[in-house]
Amino acid sequence: MEIRTICWKNNSCRIIDQTLLPTEYKEINIETVEQMFDAIKTLKVRGAPAIGIAAAFGIYLGVREYSEKSVSDFLNFMDKTSKYLLSTRPTAVNLFYAVDRIKKLVYSRKNLEVDELKEIIFLEAQKMIEEDNKTCKKIGEYGASLLKDGDTILTHCNAGGLATASYGTALAPIYTAKEQGKKIKVFADETRPLLQGARLTTWELKKHGVETVLICDNMSASVMLKGWIDIIIVGADRICVNGDFANKIGTYGVAVLAKEHGIPFYVAAPDSTVDRSLNTGDEIIIEERSKDEVSNWFGTQTAPNDIGVYNPAFDVTPSKYVTGFITENGILTPPFK
Amino acid sequence: MEIRTICWKNNSCRIIDQTLLPTEYKEINIETVEQMFDAIKTLKVRGAPAIGIAAAFGIYLGVREYSEKSVSDFLNFMDKTSKYLLSTRPTAVNLFYAVDRIKKLVYSRKNLEVDELKEIIFLEAQKMIEEDNKTCKKIGEYGASLLKDGDTILTHCNAGGLATASYGTALAPIYTAKEQGKKIKVFADETRPLLQGARLTTWELKKHGVETVLICDNMSASVMLKGWIDIIIVGADRICVNGDFANKIGTYGVAVLAKEHGIPFYVAAPDSTVDRSLNTGDEIIIEERSKDEVSNWFGTQTAPNDIGVYNPAFDVTPSKYVTGFITENGILTPPFK
Repeated sequence: MEIRTICWKNNSCRIIDQTLLPTEYKEINIETVEQMFDAIKTLKVRGAPAIGIAAAFGIYLGVREYSEKSVSDFLNFMDKTSKYLLSTRPTAVNLFYAVDRIKKLVYSRKNLEVDELKEIIFLEAQKMIEEDNKTCKKIGEYGASLLKDGDTILTHCNAGGLATASYGTALAPIYTAKEQGKKIKVFADETRPLLQGARLTTWELKKHGVETVLICDNMSASVMLKGWIDIIIVGADRICVNGDFANKIGTYGVAVLAKEHGIPFYVAAPDSTVDRSLNTGDEIIIEERSKDEVSNWFGTQTAPNDIGVYNPAFDVTPSKYVTGFITENGILTPPFK
Repeated sequence: MEIRTICWKNNSCRIIDQTLLPTEYKEINIETVEQMFDAIKTLKVRGAPAIGIAAAFGIYLGVREYSEKSVSDFLNFMDKTSKYLLSTRPTAVNLFYAVDRIKKLVYSRKNLEVDELKEIIFLEAQKMIEEDNKTCKKIGEYGASLLKDGDTILTHCNAGGLATASYGTALAPIYTAKEQGKKIKVFADETRPLLQGARLTTWELKKHGVETVLICDNMSASVMLKGWIDIIIVGADRICVNGDFANKIGTYGVAVLAKEHGIPFYVAAPDSTVDRSLNTGDEIIIEERSKDEVSNWFGTQTAPNDIGVYNPAFDVTPSKYVTGFITENGILTPPFK
């Protein structure tokens, strides 16, 4: 089966509303930049590569009705639209990468007319989907070379098809290994507070026919101690030149546990996740989200009123815990030049 | 303020229904052994020391209407009642300890009449509450000697007043330190799947006026890396002679993280938690609970149908990760003779 997380269809950007999974599968049409802003902000579309593509289409949706002829006014308008989209989520570098790529391309063609520039933005967003698919397939191939028949993998959060256009990063090696006929089993951390592991990773692994066991985040240590895990693969939202990387909160703890139990710990991500402007993880800005995500649950209050809550969306794992980075260019180790 | 988790009042055993906290505070009267079985099984009363006391009152509730005169028949009936209560939860040693203590006492007095034996059971259960209070206060005193003014403590699950008759084990040092005028701050792991940290620990720390920050279990690593935690104190459900101990699932991961970050890791528990029949943690039986606790949330489905789930209620932390055991007899290190 193929998941189509984000695509263009019937004159709008069609996404799977991931807030409704796993109990409801619903595709929604995003027709305005405001709708795209909301979709990224509320995690209807999430995952570093997917929100990069979403932002590119978001710019197109923002400018497509622009009706003036002046290119310089158009460029100003595009810049404002871009800035608006960048304010959705500060940690994923792919968002910045995608916006920057669109802007650079448009500025390099500013001798063209406004309608042509709009078309260029649209085609570049489409190209990003194709590139993402190719990249994920390559990550799948390189990653699958690490997996033996009968292996059990632990993953955290969702860096699967639902985090990209279709095939995933951390889950791509699992899908490729399965296509190669290897028997693979996965333990999926549920990933509090928003349960991307429970809701999304298990959903897509099941769709792909992969044997999956769901655990709470605090059970992974115990599962590792029992010797049930052969390898750990996670995604990344931003990778620094020295190999420190940001990923969903909880990743750092998994990395420490992997070290303690002697389990290889890999990060799967496209090269576009490397932020070459950052030398170390200390420079990464971590998004903090609403305390309600921790103290409430689908409307059910789970903690006393007015209790303090700390709710970082990501953590930074120092490079020393990473066995290797699975990218479309092979399995690499830092520094990333 | 004082919490009274379990006591005898108006001819019945009165407990706080902990499944309703933190949004509703309700005391319920347990009048039959079947009600006590249900209360322990469904975690209305939980925490190793508290369920020991609950079991003692449970035996009394089971035998108090016994109307025959034969002591040997009474002993058989008491044994059946005890066995029934022991089947509620297999991991907490205090349950076994309490039942064994009642039985041994009654057998040692079997020259008395049935009504006198009933009275003996009742008085012994009452005595367990008094002893628990004394024990917890001593744990508080010894533990508080480890806490400096301004310290921040991380704890996992709930080993507080709600897990004992009133004052707690892992939280007792915090309460005592506060009474001594020290400024103390606590990070509380929410403790999936049943959120004893979010629902119970924050509730009682707030009642005691202790500054508290709630985090998801997967955030503790990040908080430790930031240097925000001075000391970790957790409870225990069963301690082996060599110091390996069972506690709420997730404790082992916290212990590994403590070691990696050089943070002292203490276990606070009464001496009755030591199971001298077990040499190492390999011998501890771990309760596995319903998969619904992980895949559903207050009636909201959070994972696909038919997904595999592993849901152990406890894990075993090897002794080597423990800095010391805070008991009513001082701060000890194994072996426990």
